Amino acid sequence: MKIALLGCGNVGTEVVRLLHEQSADLAARIGEPLELAGIAVRRPDKARDLPVPRELFTADALGLVNRPDVDIVVELVGGIEPARGWITTAMAQGKSVVTGNKALLAEDGGTLHDAAAASGVDLYYEAAVAAAIPLLRPLRESLHGDRITKVTGIVNGTTNFILSRMTETGAGFSEALSEAQDLGYAEADPTADIEGFDAAAKAAILAGLAFHTRVTASDVYREGITSVSASDIASAAQMGCVVKLLCIASRDGDDVTVRVHPAMIPTSHPLASVNGAYNAVFVEAEAAGRLMFYGAGAGGAPTASAVLGDLVAVARNRRSGARAASESTYADLSVRHMGEVTTRYHISLDVDDQAGVLAAAAQVFADHRVSIQTVRQDGRGDDALLVVVTHKATDAALAATVEELAKLPAVRQVASVMRVEGG
Amino acid sequence: MKIALLGCGNVGTEVVRLLHEQSADLAARIGEPLELAGIAVRRPDKARDLPVPRELFTADALGLVNRPDVDIVVELVGGIEPARGWITTAMAQGKSVVTGNKALLAEDGGTLHDAAAASGVDLYYEAAVAAAIPLLRPLRESLHGDRITKVTGIVNGTTNFILSRMTETGAGFSEALSEAQDLGYAEADPTADIEGFDAAAKAAILAGLAFHTRVTASDVYREGITSVSASDIASAAQMGCVVKLLCIASRDGDDVTVRVHPAMIPTSHPLASVNGAYNAVFVEAEAAGRLMFYGAGAGGAPTASAVLGDLVAVARNRRSGARAASESTYADLSVRHMGEVTTRYHISLDVDDQAGVLAAAAQVFADHRVSIQTVRQDGRGDDALLVVVTHKATDAALAATVEELAKLPAVRQVASVMRVEGG
Repeated sequence: MKIALLGCGNVGTEVVRLLHEQSADLAARIGEPLELAGIAVRRPDKARDLPVPRELFTADALGLVNRPDVDIVVELVGGIEPARGWITTAMAQGKSVVTGNKALLAEDGGTLHDAAAASGVDLYYEAAVAAAIPLLRPLRESLHGDRITKVTGIVNGTTNFILSRMTETGAGFSEALSEAQDLGYAEADPTADIEGFDAAAKAAILAGLAFHTRVTASDVYREGITSVSASDIASAAQMGCVVKLLCIASRDGDDVTVRVHPAMIPTSHPLASVNGAYNAVFVEAEAAGRLMFYGAGAGGAPTASAVLGDLVAVARNRRSGARAASESTYADLSVRHMGEVTTRYHISLDVDDQAGVLAAAAQVFADHRVSIQTVRQDGRGDDALLVVVTHKATDAALAATVEELAKLPAVRQVASVMRVEGG
Repeated sequence: MKIALLGCGNVGTEVVRLLHEQSADLAARIGEPLELAGIAVRRPDKARDLPVPRELFTADALGLVNRPDVDIVVELVGGIEPARGWITTAMAQGKSVVTGNKALLAEDGGTLHDAAAASGVDLYYEAAVAAAIPLLRPLRESLHGDRITKVTGIVNGTTNFILSRMTETGAGFSEALSEAQDLGYAEADPTADIEGFDAAAKAAILAGLAFHTRVTASDVYREGITSVSASDIASAAQMGCVVKLLCIASRDGDDVTVRVHPAMIPTSHPLASVNGAYNAVFVEAEAAGRLMFYGAGAGGAPTASAVLGDLVAVARNRRSGARAASESTYADLSVRHMGEVTTRYHISLDVDDQAGVLAAAAQVFADHRVSIQTVRQDGRGDDALLVVVTHKATDAALAATVEELAKLPAVRQVASVMRVEGG
């Protein structure tokens, strides 16, 4: 069974190492040895401390994919092109594919699944979401007899590290980001993480899997964590909550909603104790009830472990002559606009400390048919803090409410607005 | 694709209901409909509110298994015989089997796996451990390219409910047990749960899966929770821990140890916040790192969801003509005796409040080469409480230490001894 490895960075290096170290185990599990046919890299002549002959390295990725002795292509380069071309070429030739390419899957997963089904090959990508956490396989297979209603995940380790540090130390966002950068948990340019782009790509992949429908990253409503303040975290704590960047995919009849935004969740929720760079995905299904999958969300070795798990499954399928189960989408669900999604809001207002403020504010909520769950008013001398937590209402109604609250004469400032989940 | 269902209790009823409700979805996922060929029950004439014709019910389980049109046998009767006979008969005829029978798998899983491999059929049993939590599939498949070093689980909902209530309310064991019985979380005869027999069976299955070797329930060291006291829980809290009934399977070279006993774990450990009747399994693997799987550990619908997931996988394998991957054991690991296992102990002693007690006690630890991590002495007037937490030592050395401590003149009573895990 011969493998073409495309890319040999952090994860690819660990894959090569594991293939070497575990070769006897892998051969026993598959029924024959897994052999590296070649490794495509940009600089094949670079010195590498890897237990493989140097002649395996090549700069010609497409040539390697096209080699007739290659059975499985492992794509770890990332990005849309040329990765998509390599993957579709491989599948058209009847080769199975293992990839960790979340950008490509989030943009064009449906097409890739259709191509895999048409060629009768496997397309596995456990490494694309939450690294080593076995997640896609359970969603695709174990819960097949069930109906998933909602998936709520912490799928970005950088933002979870930052929010965890803010919670532990009371630090502000910038300070926690600097710490994350110093410790290597955040990149020099952290945009993809802190603005929620990375989580949105993973949300699209998770939604597609959970609901067997096409969702792309551009369908995902997205807010990052840059405006989360130390006082938001403190407000959350006051109501027994913590702040997390959540990706939420839920199904309501023939509609799905997919969104990424910071939210308050109760400390008793299993996701609340997922701290630091760890990831977790909480799944609600009609029969199975509440499930959670927890583990390392990044890192060379954990991600390589996911790639190896896929490789074994794909190799066994090929050896047994199994035609891959078609994963092509068959539900045609529509993605609902964020404005129509029902959520709860936690709103903090700096107001004048005078009679009638609460009545005026309550009227604004009533005008927009937003029902209030709790109100707390803390006088601070001249001004007061008014904290309102709403019942569920459409996001559009809540947004309009906040806009109008800001215009009330007694409201000095809308100090913070955050969605509340997991209640 | 025709299914013989053996047993129609709590779980079987939900399986029938899900097969009916989800029939269109299931047919789409498998590529053809799943059809019930018959349902074997003790009393076929009993009135049942199920969406299937009454003539499907039969008292002749073996006759149903033998029917040539049956492709898959779902065994939900439990117990060793006659379930084993039905399962082996089915497999010998080339029929795949889905079961939730943990007693049988814990006693004779190796033989069943060999029989499945010999006949080239699937043997799936996701429902046997931690009900709906997709666990066996990830252990069998997703982590195939990795090496699992340790599995630590909360796999019995009854005991977890009792210990959670003791922690929340300060109640003693008997009081919490009564409450669990009142609420239906514990049986009238709770022995199998509170003495750890149920957890030991699951531990054997988990160990076999994690380490690809034969482990039976009788190989599992077992202590229940009947001697866990309110003061143990309070002592745990004082050192930032909670008490859980853990099943622990670990591998050290060519040896495995499998044990079930109450233990203190730090509140920061992901298993610490698994409360009530929920189950969770924490997995440590060389490459994947730390993973956790969380969900409902019992209940008709969650367990039925696991059965359905297996059914879909098995049906798809049959339809694709896949020969089942052999799960026969290939590692021949030996099970280490509990005395050789290294653990940490938390020991509380009621001692005379006088000079020299600590020195005498410390000498006993030193004599057995058990290293002390922390000591706390709280005077209470005439007597004192001496609490010692050790570093890791063999269980035999720790047990001998405790035996000798009890004989010291100044020691009035060994108030409690509990292992400490997850540090």
